Amino acid sequence: MLKKLGVALFTFINLDRKSSVPLFQQLYAQIRQAVLSGILTSDIRLPSSRSLAKELGISRMCVLMAFEQLNAEGFIEGRVGVGTYVSPNLAAQINQRPAVERRHTKRNKPEIILSRRGSIIAANRAEFKSQIPTAFLPNQPAYDMFPFNIWSRLTARRLRQPSIDMLNYGDSFGYPPLRRAIANYLRDARGIKCDAGQVIVVAGTQMAMSLTAWILLNPGDGILMEDPFFVTLHEMLSGFGARVINVPVDQNGMDVSAGIASKPDARLAIISPSHQYPLGVTLSLPRRLELLAWAAKNKSWIVEDDYDSEFRFSGAPLAPLQTLDRNDRVIYAGTMSKVIFPSLRVGYMVVPPGLVDAYGAAVHLLTRGISTVTQAVLTDFIDNGHFSNHIRRMRLVYAERHGALMEAIHGELDGYLDVSPTRAGMNVIGWLPPGNDDKQAKQALLEQGILSYPLSYYYTEQPSRSGLFLGFCCTPPEKMRPSVQRMAKALNV
Amino acid sequence: MLKKLGVALFTFINLDRKSSVPLFQQLYAQIRQAVLSGILTSDIRLPSSRSLAKELGISRMCVLMAFEQLNAEGFIEGRVGVGTYVSPNLAAQINQRPAVERRHTKRNKPEIILSRRGSIIAANRAEFKSQIPTAFLPNQPAYDMFPFNIWSRLTARRLRQPSIDMLNYGDSFGYPPLRRAIANYLRDARGIKCDAGQVIVVAGTQMAMSLTAWILLNPGDGILMEDPFFVTLHEMLSGFGARVINVPVDQNGMDVSAGIASKPDARLAIISPSHQYPLGVTLSLPRRLELLAWAAKNKSWIVEDDYDSEFRFSGAPLAPLQTLDRNDRVIYAGTMSKVIFPSLRVGYMVVPPGLVDAYGAAVHLLTRGISTVTQAVLTDFIDNGHFSNHIRRMRLVYAERHGALMEAIHGELDGYLDVSPTRAGMNVIGWLPPGNDDKQAKQALLEQGILSYPLSYYYTEQPSRSGLFLGFCCTPPEKMRPSVQRMAKALNV
Repeated sequence: MLKKLGVALFTFINLDRKSSVPLFQQLYAQIRQAVLSGILTSDIRLPSSRSLAKELGISRMCVLMAFEQLNAEGFIEGRVGVGTYVSPNLAAQINQRPAVERRHTKRNKPEIILSRRGSIIAANRAEFKSQIPTAFLPNQPAYDMFPFNIWSRLTARRLRQPSIDMLNYGDSFGYPPLRRAIANYLRDARGIKCDAGQVIVVAGTQMAMSLTAWILLNPGDGILMEDPFFVTLHEMLSGFGARVINVPVDQNGMDVSAGIASKPDARLAIISPSHQYPLGVTLSLPRRLELLAWAAKNKSWIVEDDYDSEFRFSGAPLAPLQTLDRNDRVIYAGTMSKVIFPSLRVGYMVVPPGLVDAYGAAVHLLTRGISTVTQAVLTDFIDNGHFSNHIRRMRLVYAERHGALMEAIHGELDGYLDVSPTRAGMNVIGWLPPGNDDKQAKQALLEQGILSYPLSYYYTEQPSRSGLFLGFCCTPPEKMRPSVQRMAKALNV
Repeated sequence: MLKKLGVALFTFINLDRKSSVPLFQQLYAQIRQAVLSGILTSDIRLPSSRSLAKELGISRMCVLMAFEQLNAEGFIEGRVGVGTYVSPNLAAQINQRPAVERRHTKRNKPEIILSRRGSIIAANRAEFKSQIPTAFLPNQPAYDMFPFNIWSRLTARRLRQPSIDMLNYGDSFGYPPLRRAIANYLRDARGIKCDAGQVIVVAGTQMAMSLTAWILLNPGDGILMEDPFFVTLHEMLSGFGARVINVPVDQNGMDVSAGIASKPDARLAIISPSHQYPLGVTLSLPRRLELLAWAAKNKSWIVEDDYDSEFRFSGAPLAPLQTLDRNDRVIYAGTMSKVIFPSLRVGYMVVPPGLVDAYGAAVHLLTRGISTVTQAVLTDFIDNGHFSNHIRRMRLVYAERHGALMEAIHGELDGYLDVSPTRAGMNVIGWLPPGNDDKQAKQALLEQGILSYPLSYYYTEQPSRSGLFLGFCCTPPEKMRPSVQRMAKALNV
C-alpha cells in the first residue's frame, strides 16, 4: 500500500508512448488496476490533474479524461473542497475480498460446475470441428455442380433494396413465403399432406430433433430409435434426460414389434423409413402400419426423418410414412443441407396442426429462428424452379457417380470390399471381409487422405459385420478410379 | 367390401383426365386408399393390367406403373401363376385397426400430449409473429442507414467461387475468422479480455441464453435475474426447469445483495450491467464487485448481456463486468441484431476457457450452428472496417434522433409524458402520469399506428409507475414530430 493519508505517488504508472492505446486509456486502466488490486485505497488522496500531468509528462486533458472515466465507473469520487479519492465503499469491498484473490492478480483456475446434461455433452469430445470433404466423406453433395451464379443473383436481388420485413425480427415459424414454397414442394414431390401453416423452418435436422425433445419429452420418457442411426442424436436426447431404446434394423427396416415390446409406452419414435440411415433399407408396409397404429393408440409421436428423399435415381420414391398417417402422429423432418449445401443451415418440419404453436414458441424461445434473407433467397430458388431443376440434374449426376464408384470398386477392390448398389441417396456401404476392424480401416484410409466413417460408428454396440460408409456424390467420376486405387493401397488389397 | 374371392371390379376408381396429376399416380393413390380403408382385401385378386387398362380406358403402361409403385411399397404382391393380390399381412393388420379409424377415413382429431415444458410454452401465445416496425417499436435500428450496397458486394464476392469450407458443415463454435474478428473488436471496443478461442458464434442472445440453460442448469437450480428484464427469458428458463429469482432494480442496477440473500446458492445470474434492460440504469461498481465475489465464492456463473453497448452517444462507455472478473465466472453475450439488422440472426458469446467445449458441443447437438456464408460476410464487414464505421455513424444518427424525440415530446407531450434522456442505446422510457395504465396507452397508440411496449410488460408484477418503452432509432428526425403528434392525439393530451 502507498503512504497512508497522504497523496499517492503515481510511481506505479508506466505509460507506453509507442502503443496504439491512447495515453488516457492506459492511465485509466492502470489506476483502475491499482484500485482493484488494493494498491490505491480510499484514504489516499489522488494528485490533482495538473500535478499528475506534470509528473507523468502528459497533457492535463489526458488525466482529466482518465479521471472522468474512473469517476463514471465509480472507482474514484471527488469530495468538495478536499480532493479526489478512491470510492470508500469500493475500497472496503475490495479489502473484504478473499485473500487469495488479492495475492494472485492473475486469473485463477476456475472450478467448472456444469449441469448434468452439460457434463454429459462436454465429456464427449465429438468431432464437431468441420472436415474438408474429400472422397468419400458421407452426406456431401456435389459442390462443383451447385448453380452459385443463380444463387448469387437471387441474393443480390434480395439485398438490393430490402423491405423492412426482410430485416426486422422475423416470424419464428419461418418466413411465410418459404413455408408456402416448402409445402408446395412436399405435396408435389413427396405427396405430403400439409398446408403451409404446418411447416416450421429450422436450422436443420439436428434442430428439428432438439425442438422435438424440448417440447415432447419429459425426463425419463422413452424413445424408440433405430440402431444404427445418427450418433449425435443419442447425446442430444440423453442431454434432455430421455431414455433411448435402441431398436435393431433388418432388411425390412426398424424391427417395430421388438421396439414396441421393449418400451410400449415410449413417447416418441425417431425413424428413417424411406431409406434407413445408414443401412439404406426401407421400412416395410406392415411395419409402417404397425408403428402408426401404436402411435395412435398410445398418443405417442413419430418423427420421420426423410433426410435424402430427393435423390432416388432408380425406381419410384416410396411414399413417406406421413402420407399413411390418419391420426396426426407423424412429424416429418427434412433438410436443405443435401440439396443446396450443408453450411446453409436450413431444414424444415411438417408438424400436425395441434403442434404448430408449440414448435413456433420453442423456436422463438431457443433461437428466434434463422436469417430471413437466406430464407427469402431459398424461397426464390424454389419458386423459380431452380430447386426442382437442380434436384433433377443431381439425380443424374449422382447416378453417374454411383455407377463410377461401383465400377471402380469392382475393378480395384473386387472380392475385398462388398458393396451393394443403392437406388437412392448419397452413400453406400462397403462391407469389409470378416475379421476386419472398420475403425482401423477408416484410419488407414485417412492416412491416404480418404475420408469415410466406420459403420460401427453408427451402432451403439459392436455390429456383427464391419463396413465403411462411403459418400460418392462429392467426387467427380473421373476422380473415382484414382481415389479407389488409393483406397486399395491404404487397405493393402 | 367387394365381392369375396373374386376379381375386384374397380368401380371405385374415378380418374380425372383434366388434372395435372398423371393418371398413373391417380390410379396408384386410389388403389392405395382402397387398401387402407379396407375396401380391397387380400382375398380379392386384382384384375390384370390389360383388363384394368381396358376397363378404365387408359394405357396399359399407366396401370403397370401404378402396380409397380404399389408393389414397391408393399401394398400388393404378385403370386406366381395366380395373380396379383393385396398383401395378406397388410390386410390382416388393417382389419385389426380400431373400428373408429375405419369408419372415419378423414383425419381424426388427435390428442396432443406435450412434455411439461412443451405445455408451459405452448400455453403462452407470445407475440412471436413479426411486426412491421413503425415509430416507436423498441430495439429497431435505423434500417434506412445500413450500407446494403457494401453488404451486398461482400456477399456477392463470397458467393462467386466459394471454397468448400464455405459450403461444408461448418465449425460448431463458429466460423474461425469470425471468432477472431469478434475477439479483436471486443478487445478494442469493450476491453474484453479474451482470445478468439473463447468466442462462440450463436444465432443471437436468445440462443446464448438457451445454450447456457442447457449446459449450466439442472432442474430446480436458481437464477438471479433483473426484474424488469427480457420477458421471453422467463419462459425459456422455466422450460428448462430453472427457478427464476426476480431481483428488483433501482438507480444502481440490480439489487445484488437482495438477490443473493434470497437465493445464496443460485447457479447463475443473468444481468445487463452496462445499460439495464429496459430501465437503462448502470450497475454500480460496489454491486459489480459484490456479484463477482459471490460468483467466485459460490462457483456460480454470471451471464452479462451487453445488448446495446455499441451505441453510447455521450460519455465514455462503461467497462463490462467481464473485464473486472479475475475468476472466470463471467459469460459475456452480445448481438449483431442491433448493429447490422435483427433478421441476420448472429450473436456471440465470450465464455471462460473451461466452458468452450461444452458450448461448442451444445451448439453442435442443438442446431449445428448458423450459415457459414453469412458468418463470412460479417467477417469481411468487420475486418474491412465497415463495422466500426457504421457504429460511429449510427452513434451520431441515434444521438440526433434521440434529440429530435426529446424535443418533439417536449413540444407535444410536455407535462404528460416524462422522459429522461438517455446517454446510450436505442430506447427511452416515457413515464405516464400516475393512474394511467400503460397497457391501455399502448393499445391507444397502436390504433394510431404507433408501436411501443408498456413498461409493465417487462415486469413480473405490476410496477408502481407506468410507462411506455419507446425506440427512437428507426424514425428519421423529420418524422419524429408528426409521430409524436399522433401519440399526443392517441393519448388525448
